[in-house]
Amino acid sequence: MTLNIGVIGTGAIGREHIKRITNTLSGGKIVAVTDVNQESAKQAVEQYGLDAAVYPDDVSLVAANDVDAVFVTSWGPAHEASVLAAIAAGKYVFCEKPLATTAEGCMRIVEAEMKHGKRLVQVGFMRRYDSGYVQLKEAIDNKFIGEPLLIHCAHRNPEVNEMYTTDMAISDTLVHEIDVLHWLVDDDYKSVQVLFPRKSKYAHDNLRDPQIVILETHSGIIINVEISVNCQYGYDIQCEVVGEDGIVKLPEFQSITYRKNATLGSNILVDWKQRFLDAYDAELQDFMDSIKTTGEPNGPTAWDGYIAQVTADACVKSQQSGGKEEVVLADKPDFYKKGLETASL
Amino acid sequence: MTLNIGVIGTGAIGREHIKRITNTLSGGKIVAVTDVNQESAKQAVEQYGLDAAVYPDDVSLVAANDVDAVFVTSWGPAHEASVLAAIAAGKYVFCEKPLATTAEGCMRIVEAEMKHGKRLVQVGFMRRYDSGYVQLKEAIDNKFIGEPLLIHCAHRNPEVNEMYTTDMAISDTLVHEIDVLHWLVDDDYKSVQVLFPRKSKYAHDNLRDPQIVILETHSGIIINVEISVNCQYGYDIQCEVVGEDGIVKLPEFQSITYRKNATLGSNILVDWKQRFLDAYDAELQDFMDSIKTTGEPNGPTAWDGYIAQVTADACVKSQQSGGKEEVVLADKPDFYKKGLETASL
Amino acid sequence: MTLNIGVIGTGAIGREHIKRITNTLSGGKIVAVTDVNQESAKQAVEQYGLDAAVYPDDVSLVAANDVDAVFVTSWGPAHEASVLAAIAAGKYVFCEKPLATTAEGCMRIVEAEMKHGKRLVQVGFMRRYDSGYVQLKEAIDNKFIGEPLLIHCAHRNPEVNEMYTTDMAISDTLVHEIDVLHWLVDDDYKSVQVLFPRKSKYAHDNLRDPQIVILETHSGIIINVEISVNCQYGYDIQCEVVGEDGIVKLPEFQSITYRKNATLGSNILVDWKQRFLDAYDAELQDFMDSIKTTGEPNGPTAWDGYIAQVTADACVKSQQSGGKEEVVLADKPDFYKKGLETASL
Amino acid sequence: MTLNIGVIGTGAIGREHIKRITNTLSGGKIVAVTDVNQESAKQAVEQYGLDAAVYPDDVSLVAANDVDAVFVTSWGPAHEASVLAAIAAGKYVFCEKPLATTAEGCMRIVEAEMKHGKRLVQVGFMRRYDSGYVQLKEAIDNKFIGEPLLIHCAHRNPEVNEMYTTDMAISDTLVHEIDVLHWLVDDDYKSVQVLFPRKSKYAHDNLRDPQIVILETHSGIIINVEISVNCQYGYDIQCEVVGEDGIVKLPEFQSITYRKNATLGSNILVDWKQRFLDAYDAELQDFMDSIKTTGEPNGPTAWDGYIAQVTADACVKSQQSGGKEEVVLADKPDFYKKGLETASL
Repeated sequence: MTLNIGVIGTGAIGREHIKRITNTLSGGKIVAVTDVNQESAKQAVEQYGLDAAVYPDDVSLVAANDVDAVFVTSWGPAHEASVLAAIAAGKYVFCEKPLATTAEGCMRIVEAEMKHGKRLVQVGFMRRYDSGYVQLKEAIDNKFIGEPLLIHCAHRNPEVNEMYTTDMAISDTLVHEIDVLHWLVDDDYKSVQVLFPRKSKYAHDNLRDPQIVILETHSGIIINVEISVNCQYGYDIQCEVVGEDGIVKLPEFQSITYRKNATLGSNILVDWKQRFLDAYDAELQDFMDSIKTTGEPNGPTAWDGYIAQVTADACVKSQQSGGKEEVVLADKPDFYKKGLETASL
Repeated sequence: MTLNIGVIGTGAIGREHIKRITNTLSGGKIVAVTDVNQESAKQAVEQYGLDAAVYPDDVSLVAANDVDAVFVTSWGPAHEASVLAAIAAGKYVFCEKPLATTAEGCMRIVEAEMKHGKRLVQVGFMRRYDSGYVQLKEAIDNKFIGEPLLIHCAHRNPEVNEMYTTDMAISDTLVHEIDVLHWLVDDDYKSVQVLFPRKSKYAHDNLRDPQIVILETHSGIIINVEISVNCQYGYDIQCEVVGEDGIVKLPEFQSITYRKNATLGSNILVDWKQRFLDAYDAELQDFMDSIKTTGEPNGPTAWDGYIAQVTADACVKSQQSGGKEEVVLADKPDFYKKGLETASL
Repeated sequence: MTLNIGVIGTGAIGREHIKRITNTLSGGKIVAVTDVNQESAKQAVEQYGLDAAVYPDDVSLVAANDVDAVFVTSWGPAHEASVLAAIAAGKYVFCEKPLATTAEGCMRIVEAEMKHGKRLVQVGFMRRYDSGYVQLKEAIDNKFIGEPLLIHCAHRNPEVNEMYTTDMAISDTLVHEIDVLHWLVDDDYKSVQVLFPRKSKYAHDNLRDPQIVILETHSGIIINVEISVNCQYGYDIQCEVVGEDGIVKLPEFQSITYRKNATLGSNILVDWKQRFLDAYDAELQDFMDSIKTTGEPNGPTAWDGYIAQVTADACVKSQQSGGKEEVVLADKPDFYKKGLETASL
Repeated sequence: MTLNIGVIGTGAIGREHIKRITNTLSGGKIVAVTDVNQESAKQAVEQYGLDAAVYPDDVSLVAANDVDAVFVTSWGPAHEASVLAAIAAGKYVFCEKPLATTAEGCMRIVEAEMKHGKRLVQVGFMRRYDSGYVQLKEAIDNKFIGEPLLIHCAHRNPEVNEMYTTDMAISDTLVHEIDVLHWLVDDDYKSVQVLFPRKSKYAHDNLRDPQIVILETHSGIIINVEISVNCQYGYDIQCEVVGEDGIVKLPEFQSITYRKNATLGSNILVDWKQRFLDAYDAELQDFMDSIKTTGEPNGPTAWDGYIAQVTADACVKSQQSGGKEEVVLADKPDFYKKGLETASL
């Protein structure tokens, strides 16, 4: 049984997913593509030798009879409409972040999905599929460290270009921590605050970098996340959870070690695209597998997309106000309480 | 384009590969199975919901028109005949180790393949596809450590049952180091010697454990391999290459780290099947991909299977003689010099 | 040339220093002791076989002709008077923290010392003598990581008894970070804020534990310090300085590593007294050596004691107010600008 | 109570010890020095401001009434005579390695000491005082890893000059492993064998480098030691003991870790003199302390010096013969069985 997939948006991430489905993963087939740049859509078909139709827009692609599931990999502002179209057609959707660029947009998707009556949407928060985070989750769920009290995180990129502005440290960067951390401790955020330390000489004029974001959950867990997008040395994701009985920490990216020139060293990644390669594979394989075996995707839900957007909005507000900002979420519908959402690989 | 695969031998490893091809990897399909226990073959079809014919024996399976490639995953003594049958039929073969249980048997396969005129056979030495070994290989090939002079290795299993005898430390255990190490340094073995240290109290009566194997290559590299198959603490593979300018070492298996009970710790695998999971996936995907793109498999060759067998025989001879034994290989045919054999993933 | 030392306070820390001077270090001799409990003073003489007079109080001990330097190791509230008495007598003083229990008390000592005209006082902030911190300091001073932007710290104790109250997390615990961190980055604190995460089940009724303290310096460096005094697993001091070009981190306490029971582990200290043993030795040896070679002690000054007290007061105020509190220091007198204060061992 | 010490040999190591006794350690005083170069002896007195007499030779120094103990830090061939003179005078001796340059010479010292009737001699094998080796010893003695079966070691120097010849890899380098390893496992060597791998391009014409030495003990423990004296990258001492139940390994030299330029690194020592600084301090302090408290030195004995010499001789013989050589020791006299010889710091 093959899952037939239509791809909306054939830019970089869209083509990565096309390549995965076609050359690496099992059980899916790209049968349809579209892009606002039709030439790009045609090139993608050629580049990967696809047996796929090129559609003029998302609506016609979603409507195609042979499309079982849709990948939304267009630019952010276009996500909401494509996802709503897919839900209206009863098609499964894998949507890259953001689910929508506003909390209201996310809520419209949540409501559409609930009205449809079963889960159709998975949001592309791939870290839940990373082996390191999965090990952390298992340790926490097994009470290996007792109740979690604190989380120390860092999200570091070697550099960013001048298009990257202060608020993107939240919407493009922190958003991954926002999703994975509440999942990790099974708790919701209560408040956030952004602090601006001394600015790095490598940060552009219109960018405050680094930043520290402090998130507090309802149970009182305090999370501090360092965001450094001009750290120079590499792409580095750190996460350490402090519990009542012990601490667990994300592993370093796996590298040979060496002894040379008075140094005992190992390699740190520079290219972020290498860091979660296995997680991207696992998330798409799980999306396809769980649809086949349970009739619903199993990963991050539309509700998780909504949480991410509300929390990110509060962080941006704190960037501007300088103070602590509340995270005000609607009550979680029962609809989204049923599953475990990727507790293990 | 799908590669149609017939599986000879539906025991544990056979089923693992069936599962991989069916549920995880891209581009292959199991269309035929056989086993000396026909019931087992039928169960495998059912277990994985295969659309595959059950054949009475290897010969009939190999002859099936829709079979493009054969997986030989039966017990060792049966490998040679199945591989020779596949070559005779001009079918591709992926053969688990050993290629044959004697050097002469391996040589018969080598000769059959050369007579056929192009590479058909890949031997299941999966370590060449392990990300850690690949990184070691790249570092050595890039002269990061200068010329290699010494290699320190350990191959440790938590325990073995009473069926495991002294010689199996060579044929079942060391054989993986035999293959991967000569590939790593692109050199051939000249002599071997096995030393028996004090015996572990956990070793059975008919087993000398641990053992130390010392291999010397033609360029003078000395390799020492500790084999401990009752080490109790875990499944642990170590490899450190000492070069003129520095040292590179295999990474530990990736684990979260923890702080608890006065210990800073990480987890060591206990189950060997977990250690090379990604490598098994990569080797089979590469087998299929390189056949499709180049018309030949790209991994360990029949000649590598022959090297492994001759070297293992010398080691067993040294176990018995107590002395140093020469490794006498036939001249390497030009046929096997053409490729690079999996230099990178 | 021997430095003759009088010890005021023969409790645990006093005896540790007596033992050091007598059995381990070079160039000092304990010639006088006193304690509010005279019996304790006599026992100390006996226990270490000292050739030392027992004095009835600090004033008479300070006045003794053969006393060159005084160790103040009594309880905190008594420090100020003893230190002032020593300065009045022109004697050198090594004073355990706190220099005085109030900022005003510290300032009285500062003023007395300046009036005397040369440095006499060293405060017992031993971390500046720890090899790990010294390496961090050298790396920062050498611009190995560029300008420091952020510091992440943790100060963890396995447990505390019921006498330990919320404010002691500042005065007894954080005070070491307060001293060593401003020295490390050669900067002064501007503001502090204490956050209270979810409370550990191991914390007593009258103790908030863990705590997070956020300190900001004048140049904008933001420091976050986790204080966990019931962390159960060990005594653990972490410090990671994030600079514009890279990061440096304190080493773990040195331990053999082991492989056993599926764990790759090393030992974490449980007893805090083991952690800075070498630093205690180094600080006292340096106190004696620098007096002999330069006529003045070289370690943390009375001014550093004042900084610690003012900063600690602001932290306690924040514990109560829940908000950010300013650190208001007097202008640094030229008198305290002359030296480098222990830049290297 | 001060131990009055006379130093025979005021070269580099002699002066290091003079400095230690004078400026760092407690309870000793240098009261006498001599050197075949009298000018050197006088300079040493001046350099460290000693209150010490300069003697014309070892015999007169040993005879001086105020000398309680003698440090023999002259060149190797002179050691035996000085040690015998000290024993004859009933003086304590701390002798740098070698105790004597021949097994016969060592045996003459052993016999002289036994005739004297109590232990006077300690040999300068400082590794037994290194915190890492002490931790290994404790773990082994506590049966933490069960019975030891194998030991993997490396002794690496960045480079040597042309004076360093093949045999010095044994007498100057391996000799430290020879001493510390038999102490570690409380066992005696039975045989040794030296293997010569491919030669490093950095090795001089008259030097085989690296070398592998395989030592076997009476209980069957097999030890392999890599000696690389042109390893370029640093001074690096590795020791891993494999037991029936687990493995323990020497810690790396303690260094801050850093993240910079795509590297997660720590520093490896280049200068061997830094590696065992604390161990040198501890061995001399223990020499003085144990003489004071027990009337005998507690460290490596004359018998240990004899073992080292016999074993080193067998290794050099194997370098020449290419084969395995027996280590033939005289029976251990009861005289040397009494103590534990530095089981812990």
